[in-house]
Amino acid sequence: MARKDLLDIVSLERGEIDRLLDQAAPFKELFTRSVKKVPALKGKSVLMLFYEASTRTHSSFEVAAKRLSADVVNFDVAHSSITKGESVRETIETLQAMRTDFIIVRHRNSGLPGVIAKLTKASVVNAGDGAHAHPTQALLDAFTIKEKFPEPAGRKVLIVGDILHSRVARSTSTVLKKLGVEVAYLGPGTLVPRVGPEQTRRFTNYDEAMAWGPDFVYLLRVQMERQDVQYFPSVREYHRLYGVTETRLQQIRDRGLYIMHPGPVNRGVELCDAVMDYERSLINDQVENGIAVRMSVLYYLKPESGEA
Amino acid sequence: MARKDLLDIVSLERGEIDRLLDQAAPFKELFTRSVKKVPALKGKSVLMLFYEASTRTHSSFEVAAKRLSADVVNFDVAHSSITKGESVRETIETLQAMRTDFIIVRHRNSGLPGVIAKLTKASVVNAGDGAHAHPTQALLDAFTIKEKFPEPAGRKVLIVGDILHSRVARSTSTVLKKLGVEVAYLGPGTLVPRVGPEQTRRFTNYDEAMAWGPDFVYLLRVQMERQDVQYFPSVREYHRLYGVTETRLQQIRDRGLYIMHPGPVNRGVELCDAVMDYERSLINDQVENGIAVRMSVLYYLKPESGEA
Amino acid sequence: MARKDLLDIVSLERGEIDRLLDQAAPFKELFTRSVKKVPALKGKSVLMLFYEASTRTHSSFEVAAKRLSADVVNFDVAHSSITKGESVRETIETLQAMRTDFIIVRHRNSGLPGVIAKLTKASVVNAGDGAHAHPTQALLDAFTIKEKFPEPAGRKVLIVGDILHSRVARSTSTVLKKLGVEVAYLGPGTLVPRVGPEQTRRFTNYDEAMAWGPDFVYLLRVQMERQDVQYFPSVREYHRLYGVTETRLQQIRDRGLYIMHPGPVNRGVELCDAVMDYERSLINDQVENGIAVRMSVLYYLKPESGEA
Repeated sequence: MARKDLLDIVSLERGEIDRLLDQAAPFKELFTRSVKKVPALKGKSVLMLFYEASTRTHSSFEVAAKRLSADVVNFDVAHSSITKGESVRETIETLQAMRTDFIIVRHRNSGLPGVIAKLTKASVVNAGDGAHAHPTQALLDAFTIKEKFPEPAGRKVLIVGDILHSRVARSTSTVLKKLGVEVAYLGPGTLVPRVGPEQTRRFTNYDEAMAWGPDFVYLLRVQMERQDVQYFPSVREYHRLYGVTETRLQQIRDRGLYIMHPGPVNRGVELCDAVMDYERSLINDQVENGIAVRMSVLYYLKPESGEA
Repeated sequence: MARKDLLDIVSLERGEIDRLLDQAAPFKELFTRSVKKVPALKGKSVLMLFYEASTRTHSSFEVAAKRLSADVVNFDVAHSSITKGESVRETIETLQAMRTDFIIVRHRNSGLPGVIAKLTKASVVNAGDGAHAHPTQALLDAFTIKEKFPEPAGRKVLIVGDILHSRVARSTSTVLKKLGVEVAYLGPGTLVPRVGPEQTRRFTNYDEAMAWGPDFVYLLRVQMERQDVQYFPSVREYHRLYGVTETRLQQIRDRGLYIMHPGPVNRGVELCDAVMDYERSLINDQVENGIAVRMSVLYYLKPESGEA
Repeated sequence: MARKDLLDIVSLERGEIDRLLDQAAPFKELFTRSVKKVPALKGKSVLMLFYEASTRTHSSFEVAAKRLSADVVNFDVAHSSITKGESVRETIETLQAMRTDFIIVRHRNSGLPGVIAKLTKASVVNAGDGAHAHPTQALLDAFTIKEKFPEPAGRKVLIVGDILHSRVARSTSTVLKKLGVEVAYLGPGTLVPRVGPEQTRRFTNYDEAMAWGPDFVYLLRVQMERQDVQYFPSVREYHRLYGVTETRLQQIRDRGLYIMHPGPVNRGVELCDAVMDYERSLINDQVENGIAVRMSVLYYLKPESGEA
């Protein structure tokens, strides 16, 4: 079974998820060596098409591609005629004509990576599209959870924040459910879908959510520069209602729970400074695992861009 | 015969043009393979010096260099002291001291690449300088035309738009004439030089130009953000007078003519949406051929930057 | 003796300085060859973390890393959440989690590279931090001086300009003193520390400084865009009092002195146009030597980021 693109989590079968995660482990093992590189994609090219700036995700994919010995070309859309009104379709045709093997795309419009995938022979990896999906984030989250519980079925993950607008919430909860993990949402009523995907449990009160007994507390990033702000009375208020305050951190520590966050963190909003030193924070593991999982994804996909 | 630089088309002899184009074919053939890379320039370095932003041309050269296994370094002049008033000569001396093998330069001033070429041992490729020249665009256009007519002498190409300020018009018509192709210009009277190079035929009326019987209709990009706007009553008017409207597309289709454009296209200005699906549009071929031709150019030039 | 980081000159022992400089010579020799590359750091990754833009220093490190066959990843902090208020510590933890082998950092805050070095296993190279240090500049200056005088002890270097705020002045004078070179400062009284490091001789009058008998006149860059402007009556006045005017250039030529400058030059400020043609200007040598010295530094440092 060969897959050309990775656009979302929904369309992945359980067997594929297992394989993508299993295969990431030896790549991560590589990072403890002096030479962290393998020749797997030598001669292949990876084009970075980031309409939304994201230093971390961009660097993570770039490091992943280079550790597989691929060539990386940055298509600098910020300074492109694309933003001067060129149609997306023409851009895609240009990319197709350049015949790169992989296109990593991030865009604020849901579904754009899928449109690109249909029109090109390159393997397209969705690096985040609007509120739709962020599949490599979901896979790295699943990988991080499996490092703690190799058999994760039955474990509980509480996702906290603006669920409604979050592609991370959507993709991560989808992959976790496919692995048998229980997922619940905590956030302001307006930002937690009442009928979530597959009847996800929802909480609007922090203490009730904790009473549910999660193993992981997964904090979404508050998009300070985007729409989120208008939904909260204030950042202080958000921290008081849904953030990991020092008091809550003590409770989390007492129960031995893990903390996760997709980064970058707004300190004093999603979590207090002390979380940075919390021994069961997995935030940095997520960064490292992100590179390994993205290597696994690039290694797994099969472009149609050339004969074997 | 060894050539250090590619600065314009005028100074290329017919034999060199033939060789550059012939040599591009096997590079293009490479793009159908799984590994699209050859070790020809392994160990060589290519410095990108783009004073004018151009995502497509920049990416095309970058992909070409990497497919030849060269290392690419971007000299980020947009954030450089160069733009803070550093003299060009000092910049060039710095580049020479860095001892890269190739310098790809784009600048709004005609002749700057030639100045750099004189002062450095690196091979300099002009990637567009003011209204002067854009030789790799010309070569990829010629290559694209030869793919349709391997013996192009006697074929007719109609170039449409602002001829006066266009380095593409200048370089492309020069290379085509060297290959024996007939070239004519169509555009507003003020924008078509009355005494063009080598008495190029000129039209100001679309129907008269079509009556001339071209094989190719080559649409120049309207530089919306630059000077062009002031010369036209409006973008609508430009489209009405010189653009490929749906009616004209039908006529072009009936006659079996090819459409070309250097990209990026302003849809609704130079051409209507329907051209994107026109089976004899060569716009995407031009993109792909651009990489092959630039590989051929880099492979052909001989830097003085090190002993063989 | 293995060193993980290069943060300043002060902490380098004489033996290390000698080794770093000696080792740069064969790297420079490489630049005269057709293939200017060695496989020394194949499989290693170098992350560029430039909070302050600097085209030249950035390119110099990038070329150096690529000539050692390392992979280079640019962590684009200009467009990063870092500048949106992310704490430096979180950024550093992210970088550590990415497990690159080298981090090249430039920041306006003195001491930041040292903080990063403590928190990561990567080798950190300070590419300039505030008014603190710029050790690779110092080493390339020392290398350039040793090319002229292999036994530099007893030679005299006059550093001219805003000594007080200059990390170049600080690092370069430190390395030179370790090599036994005599250093003196010339500049406006307010910008030359009265009790300099190790009682450096200070002048405020050009003619008195020249009477001291320097072998090298080292002109610091006037930071037009930064604080320097306010300390001078005007740029003209600076040139008149401390710049290499045509009259002074004649005097320098008559005495056979060398001129140095870290670049980029403000012509008409630190020096007149004619200096560009002065046969004993070492400004371009400094650029070329910068790459060789940075190769030597990267080759010398030992990251803790993986087993050997």
